Amino acid sequence: MRIGIVGLGLIGGSLGMDWVAAGHQVYGVSRNPHTCQQAATLRAVHQASTDLESLEAHAVEVVVICTPIDGILPTLKQLAGCLSPQVVVTDVGSVKEPIMAGAQDLWPRFVGGHPMGGTESSGIGAAQLGLFWQRPYVLTPTPQTDPQWLTMLQQLAKDVGAEAMVCNAAVHDQAVALISHLPVMISASLIRACMTASSGEVLSLAQFLASSGFRDTSRVGGGNPDLGTAMAQFNQTALLQALTSYQQQLGQLIHLIEQEDWGSLHHLLSETQQQRPAFVSIATPDPAIAAISHPSTAQDEES
Amino acid sequence: MRIGIVGLGLIGGSLGMDWVAAGHQVYGVSRNPHTCQQAATLRAVHQASTDLESLEAHAVEVVVICTPIDGILPTLKQLAGCLSPQVVVTDVGSVKEPIMAGAQDLWPRFVGGHPMGGTESSGIGAAQLGLFWQRPYVLTPTPQTDPQWLTMLQQLAKDVGAEAMVCNAAVHDQAVALISHLPVMISASLIRACMTASSGEVLSLAQFLASSGFRDTSRVGGGNPDLGTAMAQFNQTALLQALTSYQQQLGQLIHLIEQEDWGSLHHLLSETQQQRPAFVSIATPDPAIAAISHPSTAQDEES
Repeated sequence: MRIGIVGLGLIGGSLGMDWVAAGHQVYGVSRNPHTCQQAATLRAVHQASTDLESLEAHAVEVVVICTPIDGILPTLKQLAGCLSPQVVVTDVGSVKEPIMAGAQDLWPRFVGGHPMGGTESSGIGAAQLGLFWQRPYVLTPTPQTDPQWLTMLQQLAKDVGAEAMVCNAAVHDQAVALISHLPVMISASLIRACMTASSGEVLSLAQFLASSGFRDTSRVGGGNPDLGTAMAQFNQTALLQALTSYQQQLGQLIHLIEQEDWGSLHHLLSETQQQRPAFVSIATPDPAIAAISHPSTAQDEES
Repeated sequence: MRIGIVGLGLIGGSLGMDWVAAGHQVYGVSRNPHTCQQAATLRAVHQASTDLESLEAHAVEVVVICTPIDGILPTLKQLAGCLSPQVVVTDVGSVKEPIMAGAQDLWPRFVGGHPMGGTESSGIGAAQLGLFWQRPYVLTPTPQTDPQWLTMLQQLAKDVGAEAMVCNAAVHDQAVALISHLPVMISASLIRACMTASSGEVLSLAQFLASSGFRDTSRVGGGNPDLGTAMAQFNQTALLQALTSYQQQLGQLIHLIEQEDWGSLHHLLSETQQQRPAFVSIATPDPAIAAISHPSTAQDEES
């Protein structure tokens, strides 16, 4: 296939590397000429340009928008002025409802996407082959999505070694609020709570004694502030819902400690010990999810 | 030296291995005869017995109580009935004030200790050489502690490769509440919040999509419920103080998201990004801590 990638950072660059390796023709666009050059050198693209219109000149069949989340809809608007109407457009944003809401009017052949991979680093220099290997690649079609567009995107997801899965945008956003955006906020609050230690002596000792428990629990709270802010901004409703639920759970646990109800606390911690493996084992998609939320199946039945 | 170890689990067994390797004579006590045998086979002790009185027969000079935290004072009480008064006793409990408060009357030559090492596993089978290598080994003497006892324990800490450091028991407990016990409670609450997802579909998808961010942030909340409960029970005051401070920080962050104050949220997340490295870099003890809280220095000046 002839694929266009707009935004040649960690995600765009890594997708490009795998697609080039899989035999596709890949054309990149970046605002930075140096990034264009680097992407070509790294074989993340066959050619790259600073000009969006170059994609139409290369007759691409699909365009993947890999900009930061606040750049997705502005980029789609620009693309709408220069792409042939048969081109399918997708994105890689980590929140899907606000993108889907804005994108439908801009480009009828838009299907939301979220390849779930990443590293601590960013930029084309951090791009790597196999970043999405065996990771979920979520696609969020609507009832208007033609099954053929979806099949094409599922194949492209497979071409980077990912597990393509289809789901509803709202369900996706609630799930990532819980397992991705909520952890950032509670982890950042841990760092802040430690910084308010009762004295400089306690703080210095805490900094010296901190070991793997603190290291792991604080990791995502010490991450990129641009990403954390964008998560909150674009997934505000689902994140606030998750935070409210979290506050309730924390309040219950504090109540048990205040009441010295050690039996109930032990029971609660035994439950969390049992519940965690369902989130961290190497899972395959629950067939029930795919069946419930696969719109192409629903469409087939309707037609 | 002739060292007695009571309790031959992960900590007692690992300390014993390093002390045997360093040339000390090590005698163990466990309630379980099979554990005694295993400890000797693993060279964690030279001999082990199920009888506490065996330690006096071996003329030990120091006894290290390595039982779970709720067994420390009961063990010290039993030891007080059979040890020569010149023997120095220490422990490895992760909370120090309640131990210090009870231990002083039971055994005047008691000095609190907390070697900070561990793995996910427990029991003598998990014991290993070098578990405390370059890890902090906290000692919490009182104004009544003879500097010679402290010097002896600091040397034993060095003999397991640890960095001995001396501090006040209350300061220790507040610091570990923040960096060790608070993370367990906020991490467990994350798992519980995810389990209350708005629908089974969201929960199944959350479990499937959960990746390294959730994995790390939830790790200690999915740990041993006995340990988590003991932390809360023995460090209740400092932990509740830490939890209250945490709730305030979380509340502030939620307020910013509700108010859509993205500029302040970005500022806050930039601060936590800058603050975290002070906790997770490979640190050497702040000389200020050692100077402030080193009671032997204070004693020298007084005498």
